[in-house]
Amino acid sequence: MSFTLTVLGSSSALPTSTRFPTAQVLNVHERFFLIDCGEGTQIQLRRFSINMSKINHIFISHLHGDHIFGLYGLFSSYNLMGRKKDLHVFAHHDFAASLEHFNRYFGLGMSYQVVHHPFTPSRPGLIYEDRQLSVEIIPLRHSIPVAGFVFREKQRLLNIRKDAIAQYGLGIGDIRKIKEGQDFVTPEGITVPSSELTLPAYQPRSYAFCTDTSCFSKLQDYLRDMDLLYFEATFAEKDRKLAKQTGHSTAVQAAKLARESRVGKLLIGHFSTRYKHVNLLINEAREIFPETYGVEDGEKYPVSLQRIGSGA
Amino acid sequence: MSFTLTVLGSSSALPTSTRFPTAQVLNVHERFFLIDCGEGTQIQLRRFSINMSKINHIFISHLHGDHIFGLYGLFSSYNLMGRKKDLHVFAHHDFAASLEHFNRYFGLGMSYQVVHHPFTPSRPGLIYEDRQLSVEIIPLRHSIPVAGFVFREKQRLLNIRKDAIAQYGLGIGDIRKIKEGQDFVTPEGITVPSSELTLPAYQPRSYAFCTDTSCFSKLQDYLRDMDLLYFEATFAEKDRKLAKQTGHSTAVQAAKLARESRVGKLLIGHFSTRYKHVNLLINEAREIFPETYGVEDGEKYPVSLQRIGSGA
Repeated sequence: MSFTLTVLGSSSALPTSTRFPTAQVLNVHERFFLIDCGEGTQIQLRRFSINMSKINHIFISHLHGDHIFGLYGLFSSYNLMGRKKDLHVFAHHDFAASLEHFNRYFGLGMSYQVVHHPFTPSRPGLIYEDRQLSVEIIPLRHSIPVAGFVFREKQRLLNIRKDAIAQYGLGIGDIRKIKEGQDFVTPEGITVPSSELTLPAYQPRSYAFCTDTSCFSKLQDYLRDMDLLYFEATFAEKDRKLAKQTGHSTAVQAAKLARESRVGKLLIGHFSTRYKHVNLLINEAREIFPETYGVEDGEKYPVSLQRIGSGA
Repeated sequence: MSFTLTVLGSSSALPTSTRFPTAQVLNVHERFFLIDCGEGTQIQLRRFSINMSKINHIFISHLHGDHIFGLYGLFSSYNLMGRKKDLHVFAHHDFAASLEHFNRYFGLGMSYQVVHHPFTPSRPGLIYEDRQLSVEIIPLRHSIPVAGFVFREKQRLLNIRKDAIAQYGLGIGDIRKIKEGQDFVTPEGITVPSSELTLPAYQPRSYAFCTDTSCFSKLQDYLRDMDLLYFEATFAEKDRKLAKQTGHSTAVQAAKLARESRVGKLLIGHFSTRYKHVNLLINEAREIFPETYGVEDGEKYPVSLQRIGSGA
């Protein structure tokens, strides 16, 4: 039951020879959710052996080129590969114009459909939900409207004990009810309480993606207790003024936010190319929040399962 | 005096983990001419240490995504880098719509101008010329209009002998005239013939770029005696029918064309991803034209200087 983030691109607006523009993919139980799609995303997907056909949903934080210029190439490649399934793109209303341009000039005779689900980044709330996962918007602050995204696993069922299945000869119907919390009544009429038959459920896992934003205190409410947080750290602390001017954050700001929000692990990236050694930014953040990691293209960050009450 | 091709991307429409979509750059005397601009071209330019600021001219063969989806990212990055010089893009008339879309949604407050020089791929002839170089169109045959490009160095001046400069005390004005072929008259009135003062000029060098095309005999006229020819070889000979159906060529067809046109060296690429080992295609071509090379991303192909009449 994976809940694993793979970083596909970790540069800021200007890519480097080793960092592609922003893109990530979140594997939730072997379904892959693409987050932003900078130029070259399809190449990174191949390079890091992500099965492209398992991507059906793309979430776009905002309409700056370094977060979306990989979409046209991805759309075209899916067509060449004979894709049939709809591809769902969650993006700002204005993305409609880019999609229309693609469809008119490059989308002739496409084997599948791109479905645009427009949203307003300034409105927090649910934009996607299925049996296992929900995705919510966090309104961010930048030069244009930007959305952060929170991915939350749904509350999971209790885990049934394997020895209980054998001991009571439980059938599939029994198991389903017990996992939902019901007690079991034996053919002899004896009630066995759910707590004897099960182990605690796994804690639902969560990931938040926030890039191209100034740091502001309200973010703590949105990010409270996240297992994993990706937060941009475009600048070092000495360039804090520049961060503010350009609608970005410093590594120290990201770390303070992670500490106040009590997140499990902080990932930082989107580093300005002005810093030759990004260790400067990582070390500044770790002084405040030790569980900080500077991401690189191709890195994977799995969130492991923890039983509720195990004191993770 | 460089005349060197660098391959930036060598895949066919679908990139792979090691081959980016089509892009090349031709260094002519330290001025860099970009040919096609597939997704990720700006990343490859950085990776292969091409000085991006030396690119002022881009030649686009046709408007399929795998040849142009790197343009928006390149345009944006130049803006972030504060480019001031005009960027000249030579492309089909219909490119105007893509450029307009870029300018409207991503080009706000650009620090420089993209100048579109429209052309009609079916009309052969000159589309660019400066003191050192000319670029001509070759009409190709594909599912949409496609242009091949011939890059030709201008006829070069005679080379003056260093010992002659010392012997006759030649000034800059004298040297210029002698290099143009004039004889020299000494202050004593003695005429020294140009041939005694000079070595033959260097042969003007030439490169032809032809991709996304069926093979047809008229091409021989356009490609006669090229020093370097890049010709697509999407398919192996066993898939010749498929090549014809899709408006592409086989490696054998490329090799026969190179032989008939008496080119110096044949480069092949744009290999279909169906072939696990491209050696199959390279070997098929070499049987016919031994000077065939299968290109890989990052490879450089310099054309060396040869004096006229040196029997290269």
